[in-house]
Amino acid sequence: MSEILDIAAVLSRLLKAENILLICHKNPDGDTVGSAAALYWMLKALGKKAAILCSDEIPARYEYMQIELFEGQFEPKYKVAVDVAGIQLFGDGIAEYTKEINLCIDHHPSNPGYADGLLLDGDAAATAEIIYELIVLSGVEITPMIADCLYTGLSTDTGCFKFANTTARTHEIAAKLILAGANLIKLNTILFESKSRSRLAIERIALEHLEYFMDGRCAFICLTKEEIAESGAESSDLEGITSMPRMIEGVEVGITIRQQPTGSYKVSVRTVPGVDAAAICAHLGGGGHKQAAGCEILGSLDNAKSALLTEVEKALCTES
Amino acid sequence: MSEILDIAAVLSRLLKAENILLICHKNPDGDTVGSAAALYWMLKALGKKAAILCSDEIPARYEYMQIELFEGQFEPKYKVAVDVAGIQLFGDGIAEYTKEINLCIDHHPSNPGYADGLLLDGDAAATAEIIYELIVLSGVEITPMIADCLYTGLSTDTGCFKFANTTARTHEIAAKLILAGANLIKLNTILFESKSRSRLAIERIALEHLEYFMDGRCAFICLTKEEIAESGAESSDLEGITSMPRMIEGVEVGITIRQQPTGSYKVSVRTVPGVDAAAICAHLGGGGHKQAAGCEILGSLDNAKSALLTEVEKALCTES
Repeated sequence: MSEILDIAAVLSRLLKAENILLICHKNPDGDTVGSAAALYWMLKALGKKAAILCSDEIPARYEYMQIELFEGQFEPKYKVAVDVAGIQLFGDGIAEYTKEINLCIDHHPSNPGYADGLLLDGDAAATAEIIYELIVLSGVEITPMIADCLYTGLSTDTGCFKFANTTARTHEIAAKLILAGANLIKLNTILFESKSRSRLAIERIALEHLEYFMDGRCAFICLTKEEIAESGAESSDLEGITSMPRMIEGVEVGITIRQQPTGSYKVSVRTVPGVDAAAICAHLGGGGHKQAAGCEILGSLDNAKSALLTEVEKALCTES
Repeated sequence: MSEILDIAAVLSRLLKAENILLICHKNPDGDTVGSAAALYWMLKALGKKAAILCSDEIPARYEYMQIELFEGQFEPKYKVAVDVAGIQLFGDGIAEYTKEINLCIDHHPSNPGYADGLLLDGDAAATAEIIYELIVLSGVEITPMIADCLYTGLSTDTGCFKFANTTARTHEIAAKLILAGANLIKLNTILFESKSRSRLAIERIALEHLEYFMDGRCAFICLTKEEIAESGAESSDLEGITSMPRMIEGVEVGITIRQQPTGSYKVSVRTVPGVDAAAICAHLGGGGHKQAAGCEILGSLDNAKSALLTEVEKALCTES
């Protein structure tokens, strides 16, 4: 188990540290990249050597953070995991650097405490909120660059202040970052106003397959493995699709079925409050949360569909 | 021309007023409804008679604001236009109430000053920002209901804090409203996570017609009048579609062509910074802003398309 640290203790350790390696989680998102980049710029302002390591490539849309990737330019002496909820999220190919982690800064309550020291704030909407407090405490100026990095973390982890994790503090920090020079227009365009061609291609197929059941209370999208392959959609594109059917006016249960390369069907169930998604999936060997759950079904698509619809019908009858 | 008022002067007039009619603009959006509703609840807390009037029906999704519509329950003695940028926006059928407006509270810089007194803050992202300051000054408690109303105005006029009008103040007020009890999860679900079936139907048709030109730098969507009629899409659905083609990765000019019931083509051009949308449209008899412009083209679709593509090609060649 990790030693639990507060922000002051973390700052004191970082001030003593040299040659600092900042490690992001695999499939890097805006929060792990933005938080690590903000920390990087803070450490540079303090005269430290630092660089960022990630098992996967950092998406090109984040290039404005001018990230210095670790490429052996120094011998790492202090390793910090940023927004990495568990060691399985370090990804492949960087094991020589992730065996002993000195410090972890995270906001996932499930973090098991794999690092020597842990700064965890499960109420923070994003790790970027914690890094913001840390930089303020350090006395390092929040430059427009640091503001851009932190805004990226804050806004992407909250779906641009839309998700349920958004708090008053999230908005308060966003205000400070704007005053510090965050380039809102540029960032919001890059982060929230662009879609890949493959994402649009799979959206088109999804909309063509959209079916309504139970007087429009259940919406259903099914994608075959051939359609997924043809669209070129990546897993993040497909994740985005799963929220579509539930968003339709009047729909209480939105279901997305994606055929896997092996032929089985991966089912995502999204519900409005009052309808239990986990219960629907539990009867089919799956599980999850009240409003978002999943399961995997073998056999034919028709069987998968009718098994699901039976469970949905039951759930809608017992609606609380 | 109106007498220009500050917030204190407006409060003093409202404190003296009785039987107050709050008037929204036609095609009511979240800001005009949320601002008027917040003002209504403030006036009720001050013991005033007040009610809300709008030429169009208030959309059902705003029912949580528990709006009291004006139905002749008192003789209006003081009329306040809320978020109404010009008299043409009062709409039809309420002329007997809109001839003499005592007070207008607005954030549109173009407001010509049609009311006796005008409180205008062109830097406010939403009229709700101004109403927030007014309620704070009045000493009326920001109840969870008032917080919900103001959050509705703030978030809808900024596309959930995504549009270029969002400022530090917008986020600061959002933070205060959350602390005052705004029901974020409910509101964000209603306001930003739901789409009408007709919106999805027109999105499907739009995606089927999506074409790329100039190595993917220009994306094109064309909708015939039959398709628009068949989808059941309303004008707000169609407005949403116009931002789609420009959002695609790599696209610099996104064009949406909608055939009008008369047969002419209404063209919406959206561009990335550096490409002048107004210039593209100016050559075709239209105009607008640098990143969003429009024009109307008569004749055949093929002619409209080729005329537009010629202008797009010129604009992309002279890109700044």
